[in-house]
Amino acid sequence: MNLTPIGTIHSAFVQAAGAPIQPYRAEDSLGTVEIFSPYVEGLRDLEGFDRIWLVYWFHRASAARLRVTPFLDTVEHGIFATRAPARPNPIGLSSVRLIGIESNVLHIAEVDILTGTPLLDIKPNIPLYDNYPITRCGWFDRVAHDPVVADARFERSDLP
Amino acid sequence: MNLTPIGTIHSAFVQAAGAPIQPYRAEDSLGTVEIFSPYVEGLRDLEGFDRIWLVYWFHRASAARLRVTPFLDTVEHGIFATRAPARPNPIGLSSVRLIGIESNVLHIAEVDILTGTPLLDIKPNIPLYDNYPITRCGWFDRVAHDPVVADARFERSDLP
Repeated sequence: MNLTPIGTIHSAFVQAAGAPIQPYRAEDSLGTVEIFSPYVEGLRDLEGFDRIWLVYWFHRASAARLRVTPFLDTVEHGIFATRAPARPNPIGLSSVRLIGIESNVLHIAEVDILTGTPLLDIKPNIPLYDNYPITRCGWFDRVAHDPVVADARFERSDLP
Repeated sequence: MNLTPIGTIHSAFVQAAGAPIQPYRAEDSLGTVEIFSPYVEGLRDLEGFDRIWLVYWFHRASAARLRVTPFLDTVEHGIFATRAPARPNPIGLSSVRLIGIESNVLHIAEVDILTGTPLLDIKPNIPLYDNYPITRCGWFDRVAHDPVVADARFERSDLP
């Protein structure tokens, strides 16, 4: 199970500290996705979709931890009950808005991803497949959702 | 970028032919997720969430193709404009319903995943993070959504 990057995500965020957590907090954040040439043919007909899932590698994440205190809470939870990047397989997932495509470059908005992030996959975001009625969200339902940005707690300490 | 399975997904579907495509077509399909012991601590507090994202490896998928004719259409589209499994990085994504957790076993419903699938990650499905207003879904908006199940077109031909 080896991965090959199919492109690179470019954004205004060079490090975790100060970056938005999740696209819904990143309304004004624009970015681009550069798709490597062997994969450009796979973009055909993607432009008709409002939103796309980007599946990517958390390249600046610290080693995996099984219990973490997420940005929104003050107590620990299991890593799989959070969206923190310090995961056993550091795979990230964001639904971003697709503005347009120019040859091998995707213009995107609502970007919560650090610049230089290796892209692994793109999937169309289809409400019928992806949006379900959900009433219970565990610890997430019990915390305040004040404005918050990321800090360095899940980032490798050996990076510039 | 190497992946390590954190568990195995068990379902009623041994091969693609006849399997449901997407959880919304798999209402009555139950399954389990067996989490390997080094990762069980990461499940803490997951039980409070109605639905979870399973991120997994399409272990029976054929080699990547950049243009595919998906199950729902009769013409080709770029692989990234579809959810077909024959992807450059064969990573699957399904939002399944979490029924309960017994030690290292998750009981799940609305399962569209083949049995024996290696699990890579679990994330809580949080509407605020994952559900966005979407009005345009490209080719998907223009096809009929008749009852349909998968066939073997994206499956390796050397498998039982």
